[in-house]
Amino acid sequence: MEIRSKIWLEINGEPVFGSGREALLRAVDRLGSINKAAGDINLSYRRALSYIQSMEERLGIRLVERKAGGRHGGGAALTKEARDFLRKYTALCKGVNEMMDRRFRKVFGGKG
Amino acid sequence: MEIRSKIWLEINGEPVFGSGREALLRAVDRLGSINKAAGDINLSYRRALSYIQSMEERLGIRLVERKAGGRHGGGAALTKEARDFLRKYTALCKGVNEMMDRRFRKVFGGKG
Repeated sequence: MEIRSKIWLEINGEPVFGSGREALLRAVDRLGSINKAAGDINLSYRRALSYIQSMEERLGIRLVERKAGGRHGGGAALTKEARDFLRKYTALCKGVNEMMDRRFRKVFGGKG
Repeated sequence: MEIRSKIWLEINGEPVFGSGREALLRAVDRLGSINKAAGDINLSYRRALSYIQSMEERLGIRLVERKAGGRHGGGAALTKEARDFLRKYTALCKGVNEMMDRRFRKVFGGKG
């Protein structure tokens, strides 16, 4: 038997960050484009943009910077604040998962 | 900002226990009847019974004991094993939530 979890962040009872939004930001970082990132995780461009805008609004930080269009129509990059936030979120999830596993083994005696 | 989580248990990748099944067992305990418990948490009797049976099968323990019918058509009660399991699950969730909050404050600096 194993413990599983889903972790997310809320502000005033509204979800503001979780694994889906994490995947979106990481895809923007990897692909350098909101449009490509959206396609990569099966979101419409419109939906991806609206997730990014609502995250920025709720967190009060700029996450994605759009670069001026060029031959390939510009692109997008994560801000330093977005990278900081992702780093913290990853540290949080890793720490929580490790503690959860320890707690689980302690309570259920490592059975299964 | 706050951290939120959903915790559940799996065996070989199959969910075996979480907040929904916890609510079902607690309702059986409180109402003394699988039928009443099902109604209380908006499940059909058939669905409730199938949850209980699959939990018992996967966990390998008897959870609910049906009592012989009487004037009110018998009833149901949790076994000692079910109570032990619920107690552990509650301890697990409580411990995990407390640790998660601490970890969150450590990583995100208690902001929000």
